[in-house]
Amino acid sequence: MVATDLLTLGIIAGAGSLPRRIADRCVAQGRKFHLLLLDGHADPTLHAGLPFQTVRLGAAGEMFERMRQAGCQEVVFAGKVERPSWRALRPDWRATKFIAEFALKADKGDNALMAAIVATCETEGFKVRAPAELLGDTHLAPGPLGRLSPDGSQRDDIQIGIRVARAIGRLDIGHAVVIQAGLVLGVEAVEGTDRLIERCGALRHDGIGPVLVKLRKPQQEIRADPPTIGPATVACAAAAGFSGIAIEAGSTLIIDSEATVAEADRLGLFLLAVEAPE
Amino acid sequence: MVATDLLTLGIIAGAGSLPRRIADRCVAQGRKFHLLLLDGHADPTLHAGLPFQTVRLGAAGEMFERMRQAGCQEVVFAGKVERPSWRALRPDWRATKFIAEFALKADKGDNALMAAIVATCETEGFKVRAPAELLGDTHLAPGPLGRLSPDGSQRDDIQIGIRVARAIGRLDIGHAVVIQAGLVLGVEAVEGTDRLIERCGALRHDGIGPVLVKLRKPQQEIRADPPTIGPATVACAAAAGFSGIAIEAGSTLIIDSEATVAEADRLGLFLLAVEAPE
Repeated sequence: MVATDLLTLGIIAGAGSLPRRIADRCVAQGRKFHLLLLDGHADPTLHAGLPFQTVRLGAAGEMFERMRQAGCQEVVFAGKVERPSWRALRPDWRATKFIAEFALKADKGDNALMAAIVATCETEGFKVRAPAELLGDTHLAPGPLGRLSPDGSQRDDIQIGIRVARAIGRLDIGHAVVIQAGLVLGVEAVEGTDRLIERCGALRHDGIGPVLVKLRKPQQEIRADPPTIGPATVACAAAAGFSGIAIEAGSTLIIDSEATVAEADRLGLFLLAVEAPE
Repeated sequence: MVATDLLTLGIIAGAGSLPRRIADRCVAQGRKFHLLLLDGHADPTLHAGLPFQTVRLGAAGEMFERMRQAGCQEVVFAGKVERPSWRALRPDWRATKFIAEFALKADKGDNALMAAIVATCETEGFKVRAPAELLGDTHLAPGPLGRLSPDGSQRDDIQIGIRVARAIGRLDIGHAVVIQAGLVLGVEAVEGTDRLIERCGALRHDGIGPVLVKLRKPQQEIRADPPTIGPATVACAAAAGFSGIAIEAGSTLIIDSEATVAEADRLGLFLLAVEAPE
């Protein structure tokens, strides 16, 4: 592992604090890295004090070139990136080639896109690493993460959620579903988990609050797009009147695990890692 | 058919103009009917000039009693009813009995609820009829309904939509999905089709607009909850930048078919009835 760890890492950074956490880990390990912030997606203020360059999402050729010049042999995609419109993307020649190839594929879901991006990086000579792998957070054990556990009816809702999340994952639609008292309030597609939570907060009924179930897609390319939660997810769910969150043991990326669990305990939500059949 | 047509019909009315259209059809046929408006769901101004009574959704015993007194042997559920909270429902003894039985079922989706309501009506001695059957609109043929037809890429999106809608229907989650250029923008759960359309309008990309695909659930109880569209659906989709709507041949209820098609032609959307495999 030591030899691998010493390879220079290209960090392609989207929104949130995840890229910063990976860069900080590199600093702590004495590992060389090259941080590329995606213009309009990554927040430069979150990376203050670190050396970085800013690139457009559409400038794939430039990204590869800069990573090569910096001696990167591995690359990690970290942080959320909203899909832009093709027009806003203004693709360079390399991105145009990628888009032309991707346009021919039947499945154009997020996972299909991420798998194609990973394949392209590897064609260009970069090994793609998973954020969780770099942060050493890959082995989330099943069971409650915080103080609270789901009761019987919440466990029933989680079981429904697992069944539905697997079905929508298999179709490459989304990771997350919301259930309350046996009724599926909402299903995630491209809007993202936070907007799903907000919407379902407005649709919920009286009684025990809804449960969010977020799983990886069965065929998931977790190196590029792992199912992720963090303190903000917990705060969003609490504000929407949710009673808890179930995530998948083993393959969920928790951004700042300690703060996430503390937030769940503080706001009175259970946070449960579940084992889900394929 | 004549003997059946002459049975007195109980009309339990939710939102929109559908109950009125069924009552008008009864008037035209010389058929006796008894119109019960659900308080807070049906709009009395839409039923002006017709005899009606108003009942609470939770007052199931009263509904059955009134329909018996009026000599009803058949009943139709017409118009949308939002699921209330149990507290707002204030169930009478008959509704409480129903809820207690329904609470024991594993599946609590809309279709499971509607199937249970139909079964209860039949236990109480009322035959449940489908709105489309009463309006004579049961045989929607496949093909374009208006002036426009989908092009190649829109047809690809419809195929994806059929696959996804079948999957979410089988799980009793919802009827409708929205696809644009191969990507599933949104999936309907309890929020309803109009809100799905609005949400996906905000998520759409440049280029040919998204397509709405709305199918019945494979196991659908179409007597109580048929997949429905109308002029308002078309207007909502046009306002959100959609390029067309695909519905299921045979089993979709179109509210005011002529006005719906005219609205699609006026606003430049295709409206296509498709045959979808189970």
